[in-house]
Amino acid sequence: MADLFDPAQIVVEGHTADVYFLRTREILQKVGLNPVVTMEVFPARDGILCGMREVIALLRRVLPQGSQVWALEEGEMMREKEVVLRIRAPYLSFAIYETAYLGILAQESGWASAARAVVEAARPTPVISFGARHVHPEVAARLEYAALVGGCASCATPAGARLGGIDPSGTIPHAMVLIWGDTVKAATAFDRHMPPEVQRIVLVDTFRDEVEEALRVAQALGDRLWGVRLDTPSERGGVTPDLIKEVRARLDGAGYSKVKIVVSGGVHLEKIRRFKDEGAPVDAYGVGSAISSSSPIDFTADIKAIEGVPIAKRGRIPGEIANPRLKKTIG
Amino acid sequence: MADLFDPAQIVVEGHTADVYFLRTREILQKVGLNPVVTMEVFPARDGILCGMREVIALLRRVLPQGSQVWALEEGEMMREKEVVLRIRAPYLSFAIYETAYLGILAQESGWASAARAVVEAARPTPVISFGARHVHPEVAARLEYAALVGGCASCATPAGARLGGIDPSGTIPHAMVLIWGDTVKAATAFDRHMPPEVQRIVLVDTFRDEVEEALRVAQALGDRLWGVRLDTPSERGGVTPDLIKEVRARLDGAGYSKVKIVVSGGVHLEKIRRFKDEGAPVDAYGVGSAISSSSPIDFTADIKAIEGVPIAKRGRIPGEIANPRLKKTIG
Amino acid sequence: MADLFDPAQIVVEGHTADVYFLRTREILQKVGLNPVVTMEVFPARDGILCGMREVIALLRRVLPQGSQVWALEEGEMMREKEVVLRIRAPYLSFAIYETAYLGILAQESGWASAARAVVEAARPTPVISFGARHVHPEVAARLEYAALVGGCASCATPAGARLGGIDPSGTIPHAMVLIWGDTVKAATAFDRHMPPEVQRIVLVDTFRDEVEEALRVAQALGDRLWGVRLDTPSERGGVTPDLIKEVRARLDGAGYSKVKIVVSGGVHLEKIRRFKDEGAPVDAYGVGSAISSSSPIDFTADIKAIEGVPIAKRGRIPGEIANPRLKKTIG
Amino acid sequence: MADLFDPAQIVVEGHTADVYFLRTREILQKVGLNPVVTMEVFPARDGILCGMREVIALLRRVLPQGSQVWALEEGEMMREKEVVLRIRAPYLSFAIYETAYLGILAQESGWASAARAVVEAARPTPVISFGARHVHPEVAARLEYAALVGGCASCATPAGARLGGIDPSGTIPHAMVLIWGDTVKAATAFDRHMPPEVQRIVLVDTFRDEVEEALRVAQALGDRLWGVRLDTPSERGGVTPDLIKEVRARLDGAGYSKVKIVVSGGVHLEKIRRFKDEGAPVDAYGVGSAISSSSPIDFTADIKAIEGVPIAKRGRIPGEIANPRLKKTIG
Amino acid sequence: MADLFDPAQIVVEGHTADVYFLRTREILQKVGLNPVVTMEVFPARDGILCGMREVIALLRRVLPQGSQVWALEEGEMMREKEVVLRIRAPYLSFAIYETAYLGILAQESGWASAARAVVEAARPTPVISFGARHVHPEVAARLEYAALVGGCASCATPAGARLGGIDPSGTIPHAMVLIWGDTVKAATAFDRHMPPEVQRIVLVDTFRDEVEEALRVAQALGDRLWGVRLDTPSERGGVTPDLIKEVRARLDGAGYSKVKIVVSGGVHLEKIRRFKDEGAPVDAYGVGSAISSSSPIDFTADIKAIEGVPIAKRGRIPGEIANPRLKKTIG
Amino acid sequence: MADLFDPAQIVVEGHTADVYFLRTREILQKVGLNPVVTMEVFPARDGILCGMREVIALLRRVLPQGSQVWALEEGEMMREKEVVLRIRAPYLSFAIYETAYLGILAQESGWASAARAVVEAARPTPVISFGARHVHPEVAARLEYAALVGGCASCATPAGARLGGIDPSGTIPHAMVLIWGDTVKAATAFDRHMPPEVQRIVLVDTFRDEVEEALRVAQALGDRLWGVRLDTPSERGGVTPDLIKEVRARLDGAGYSKVKIVVSGGVHLEKIRRFKDEGAPVDAYGVGSAISSSSPIDFTADIKAIEGVPIAKRGRIPGEIANPRLKKTIG
Repeated sequence: MADLFDPAQIVVEGHTADVYFLRTREILQKVGLNPVVTMEVFPARDGILCGMREVIALLRRVLPQGSQVWALEEGEMMREKEVVLRIRAPYLSFAIYETAYLGILAQESGWASAARAVVEAARPTPVISFGARHVHPEVAARLEYAALVGGCASCATPAGARLGGIDPSGTIPHAMVLIWGDTVKAATAFDRHMPPEVQRIVLVDTFRDEVEEALRVAQALGDRLWGVRLDTPSERGGVTPDLIKEVRARLDGAGYSKVKIVVSGGVHLEKIRRFKDEGAPVDAYGVGSAISSSSPIDFTADIKAIEGVPIAKRGRIPGEIANPRLKKTIG
Repeated sequence: MADLFDPAQIVVEGHTADVYFLRTREILQKVGLNPVVTMEVFPARDGILCGMREVIALLRRVLPQGSQVWALEEGEMMREKEVVLRIRAPYLSFAIYETAYLGILAQESGWASAARAVVEAARPTPVISFGARHVHPEVAARLEYAALVGGCASCATPAGARLGGIDPSGTIPHAMVLIWGDTVKAATAFDRHMPPEVQRIVLVDTFRDEVEEALRVAQALGDRLWGVRLDTPSERGGVTPDLIKEVRARLDGAGYSKVKIVVSGGVHLEKIRRFKDEGAPVDAYGVGSAISSSSPIDFTADIKAIEGVPIAKRGRIPGEIANPRLKKTIG
Repeated sequence: MADLFDPAQIVVEGHTADVYFLRTREILQKVGLNPVVTMEVFPARDGILCGMREVIALLRRVLPQGSQVWALEEGEMMREKEVVLRIRAPYLSFAIYETAYLGILAQESGWASAARAVVEAARPTPVISFGARHVHPEVAARLEYAALVGGCASCATPAGARLGGIDPSGTIPHAMVLIWGDTVKAATAFDRHMPPEVQRIVLVDTFRDEVEEALRVAQALGDRLWGVRLDTPSERGGVTPDLIKEVRARLDGAGYSKVKIVVSGGVHLEKIRRFKDEGAPVDAYGVGSAISSSSPIDFTADIKAIEGVPIAKRGRIPGEIANPRLKKTIG
Repeated sequence: MADLFDPAQIVVEGHTADVYFLRTREILQKVGLNPVVTMEVFPARDGILCGMREVIALLRRVLPQGSQVWALEEGEMMREKEVVLRIRAPYLSFAIYETAYLGILAQESGWASAARAVVEAARPTPVISFGARHVHPEVAARLEYAALVGGCASCATPAGARLGGIDPSGTIPHAMVLIWGDTVKAATAFDRHMPPEVQRIVLVDTFRDEVEEALRVAQALGDRLWGVRLDTPSERGGVTPDLIKEVRARLDGAGYSKVKIVVSGGVHLEKIRRFKDEGAPVDAYGVGSAISSSSPIDFTADIKAIEGVPIAKRGRIPGEIANPRLKKTIG
Repeated sequence: MADLFDPAQIVVEGHTADVYFLRTREILQKVGLNPVVTMEVFPARDGILCGMREVIALLRRVLPQGSQVWALEEGEMMREKEVVLRIRAPYLSFAIYETAYLGILAQESGWASAARAVVEAARPTPVISFGARHVHPEVAARLEYAALVGGCASCATPAGARLGGIDPSGTIPHAMVLIWGDTVKAATAFDRHMPPEVQRIVLVDTFRDEVEEALRVAQALGDRLWGVRLDTPSERGGVTPDLIKEVRARLDGAGYSKVKIVVSGGVHLEKIRRFKDEGAPVDAYGVGSAISSSSPIDFTADIKAIEGVPIAKRGRIPGEIANPRLKKTIG
Repeated sequence: MADLFDPAQIVVEGHTADVYFLRTREILQKVGLNPVVTMEVFPARDGILCGMREVIALLRRVLPQGSQVWALEEGEMMREKEVVLRIRAPYLSFAIYETAYLGILAQESGWASAARAVVEAARPTPVISFGARHVHPEVAARLEYAALVGGCASCATPAGARLGGIDPSGTIPHAMVLIWGDTVKAATAFDRHMPPEVQRIVLVDTFRDEVEEALRVAQALGDRLWGVRLDTPSERGGVTPDLIKEVRARLDGAGYSKVKIVVSGGVHLEKIRRFKDEGAPVDAYGVGSAISSSSPIDFTADIKAIEGVPIAKRGRIPGEIANPRLKKTIG
């Protein structure tokens, strides 16, 4: 597994660029033009900046000596239309990467911003990113990285965890319980064969009533059980605040007050807020589409000066827009 | 540029899998279990199926001899909860790819379904996918491929166009006009240096009034001008139906009735419908976030039989759900 | 248990009359006035007329020879402001019963009308009235009678059933299951000790998962099991269409396709419509507050003639309002 | 008229019980089971508790020596799901009364809570309960009692007033005015024949304009007139704030500033608030359907322990729920 | 009283023109420019054209020989942006009247369009325009004229009636009833002193109940009474459909079925629709602010050609817009 | 041009009076009745009083010696139903002017109140009234006068300005630019031929892009240019906050920071608030239909005493309503 922050070859070669940039480069080369251009990049709405680390890696690779780049840092809060990136460099060196750097920032900032909203709603309960299954596997690790930048406590895939510098987090899937035919048998097998540093978190809604299963699993694994996961399907009314309270009360009543409760399955912002309002004793949330279904944040790149002379297209004001938060990153 | 439909190494090696599938595989291997499992995959809402081509490529690579797969075809309409994919194979052979095949289908079907809605609203006016700049470059080509599957007439990146088996489509970016300092000069340079098969479509909102520029460009390029593109920024009120009509009337009045009008910039479903209702004479739409901002369509994979015995988790009904539309694809 | 259609002594003696009627009677007696008055009674909104049987019984008891009464029949559809009852009699004989006959019609018609709406939504699935627990026990039988008039197939209390001329309907309460400590044990005890004409309908949501319990009960009672009742509490997401389908599928899969499914617990109009739309295989509904929480239908009694001379208060038109649907009931 | 707080014979004999309780009792008797059970009762929403006095009277009559009951007091504010009644007694002694005690609490608390809302909106203007005509006469007295518990100043029926320990309140009905053919004649007859302790409140909207009648009546009765009642029908626009102000101004202008104004006729919460906002000089409100049309408050009874062992059905937490507000009432 | 369709001197002299037209005229005169200009006038929304008669009178007075004018006719339906007036004339002859002719059309078309909506809602019941009191007396006659153009059957002022070529319509004001101190006395005085061709329509809500007054007036005037007018103030609930029905029923009951009922007082579109839906027997409506409170319809005048050469400002298309409905009116 | 505050002859002669006042006058004269009447006038809603100056001029002309009038002053804030005018005079002297004085107050107060709302929203940016083209020219001057009373800084017609005691305000119309064929040529002609005290405000949206034209005009007129006017048509997206900012930035960037920006074209309340919120640098607003489209404020005149005896029609309270804000104006 190569360094995921390095730009892919297909990108560096320009295959993913909008073709008009490729054509512009070709024409400029033919006529021998390559002015130093100041390009400013800004988002269409407020959010959490994410993807800048990759963008800087891409720019370091393509910009010639003497180029200059200013940028906000990964994970910073950004405002609508705030300049988050300024590039001052010969235009031919980076013209064709506009599609790429806008795309990286757009999608990853969209995910990070959605994650931040979820994390703030759930605080202080930690949130685990479970959304890899909603996006193409080649960007799944970026989704999870963005979720971590947005404040998630952990994520589910090894590649995503590696990007974030942590260990991946997981429980037992329904599939494993189905194959063993019984939750307790599956949990016992998991407990026997997994190294001790892996938390024992057992899914308890596969076959029987959640309360019944939670108690059976707690009895079977004893102190080694870290927690149970409730993932009741919507066909069965989903996970309700009262179900969580009931599981908690029954576990406590049976002496298992150390066993934690992880909640997953359609956990969206509104649901988290309702759970909090109703005092549901959740120890961790597993969140998927609340993050993965977020829209990209549209970013725009504007030429604001050519060879030092302020210029702009109609609708924009010529010249650089001062932003004291920007830091010199290259040059 | 390798075949983009082939699974990436990082996926095949399982780095992008949810870790609990990796652990389940490890435990099953340790206890020597590998039952033949029937897995069914269905979407959470109606839409256009996309990504199946990649999924089948992945399964072909990992499933052992004797496995069976049934699937709907790329681009088919699918219904909420309809089974679109059924895998009958030894579980260990495909357990860890659940995250990947769900993710491919989820994101690409989300994009294709949004594209279909846009294409239907615009029909018979063709739609060009311009959304690569909103997504990570490593999936930009899939976005454009999905847009083509959804019905778009063309797209902007070479990689995307290659996936769809067409040539990419493009105009002249604002950047090029800014560097030449004048729309007509930029258009003339483009016209001189591009091969004849590239359509001359000139952006006319960079410096001056769109009507004025359209007439100047038409005069400069004569019959070689295929069309003009209106991309008026929101700061200037965006592209309105009346602006399109006015440009059309002025071009016609000056004898340029063959010059087409391409409209881009925040072109969403509602805008397209309004343009149609008001009779705006648009010859093609360039659409970005109306497609790229769509959410993935959540897909679920359920084990419905183990060694031929119907089974299911709570909330699902055991056994295969018949779907006469499925076609045997592997085995 | 006396005849519930007969007026109670407290009513006949006037203790439940608005005191101003008692005072009016006293004054009229003192001054020796007792004109023949024509009184017309009409509802404030459309609905199902109920309570007329009791009202006629009351009037028969108090009106002197020569009095005349016209009325619509029990259970008829009535229109807003339609005259449903006309009394022509010496005023002193019935003046103090205005509060009583308006109240009987108001509350019972309110219930019957609500029941009709529920029954029409559920048709052809039968509806059982379970709402006695929401009203004072001295009118519980009337609530159930009104529900039957409105179209319910049966009800839960012996007194209500007697008013409607049917046998009461019931299952096994949660309390009995809790005392036996197990659903199957409770069901078996019920089966052993109840006469054969009592239907075996077993509640299956007390301790374990509904599907699991339904299968255990079916196995235990065999052909003697008439049906199971789903009453999943809202804390557990309530009864969902998918739960009903799942129970049905599992019972069918195990060969118990003759076992019926009764659904109760917060079954309101909207829920019934949704269940129908989604094709939930319900065999009977138990409905409580959808009927018992309905508001009374306000009825008004207006003097329209005195000694044959048309008269009315402001806002009303003097003289009788012809209604060919009225039938001569007394006199 | 017997004590209305005593349970009716039909209730004590179990005819109004849901039949499954009767069957449970029969089976338990056959198998010789009669455990001591702890039952807790709680409401589904916030409100004013009413009916507890009757419930305690019922329980005192049926529970054996040694039983224990804890309860909130009549008229207390209660919270959603707060335990308002706890019974610890041999189950057979009270099993069949669950329908009855829930029903008493449900309907009377519903009325009392609605009355409270009206009284608070009208405060400091007193509210008189006029709703007997909307409910069955056998519960009319309970409706009025509940209205008094909710804060009404008086009510209209002798039976209701007796339950509340006050004298009933009344005016002159439209019928009496119609029979005399003139408001002043009717008022004069009333004045001549009623004992002096009965307040002279004359209805002034029967034949002529309210202002004209109010002045005529004031002139006729002089200091003996306590007040006038405005009950203008909706056909004539109902009672408006301006009408009340006009009547007040005209009475004051003619020297009758001591004559009070009672307003009735469709007086709902919103109307009271609007009257207050607009400064309408109302001295008392007569309120009917704003109280009588309220829905019952659903109460639930849950077994929480059997022979001292905590137990509960799914969705509820086993064992007693502490409520320091409960008072030992029996035992 | 001069001809109200003739332009006032203050207008002809240009005092009411926007000053920039006066300045433009001055500059053109100084530089000796006076091109033949084609001006087109169109409305901003659909409506009934009104004021064209005055506009043509103004243009006839100011345009030189050889000028040409095309126009739609007074009272025609016009569409949003449809050309309703085209002037082809030396610019200096009419430049300063743009403010005037736009204003005449704007305000009168606004009124006529509102009148049309009211008339269509009330059809076949006739509508009388009563709105003079809401506008400045110098345009009151135009308001009423526009109301007649919109379809009203008559109006209240002599000047307005004269513009419309009819006789004015009126009843008896509240003031006259107050001065006589009694409705019947005022009606009798009116009857005695007015010529026979004036309809006897008596206002019946001044002092006493409307029903009582209507009957008294009918008795007093006999066959000479044409109708009664209900104008109950909002303080008394306004005129309701039931009040109209009651007055009708009482008049009919007393043998006065020939007496008509005129309704006024806050009669708006919605009220008319409700009265119609509820079958209120209205013989004529008096309508004020439903017409007078309407907004002007904004009209725009665009130069579309100068000396025959098509031209236009940005946002408009150069050259005349064909409209076959236009008729040559001048030249 | 006569004094516009003097009543027109057509009004004084009664041609614009509701005919029933004329008839009442005739009857009163015939029977020899002419009581001293106290009339009170009040508005139906809050607003700015306007037109009182004209009303007093009318009353001074018609009331006999010994009459008394109290009034609020022009431009004062008035409350719903507050008495703003009290007339105590022989009824025949002013009976027929009720239509006129109500109409003057209604329409002018409606305009002044709308102007006040606009002025307050725009504060401290001044507002110029441009609405003469939406109303009949015979009241155009009153509209503008009312706008000035409401707080506008200036207006566009000489007659309106004269009523307000100021000079009219104007720019260059589109027509003039079209005739010269170029904005700069038109501006130069204006500059050459207008006296120096007329502000040079040039419309910059006629032919080319607003930014381009603004810079060209600034260059051509130098220090003599007071400001530019933006009036971009809705067909082109209207004037947006960003366009204003861009024009400001470009003018400043080119050294023309003294050139002001006037904004017109569909400037309504909400638009002004949005412009302010977004910090658009507007120096003056030209406002038309936001003022001219306002509805009249309905005024009512009630007789409250006849020969000193309090009286009123139903719905109103007899006698004068004290208002300490009233000032003795006549008598």
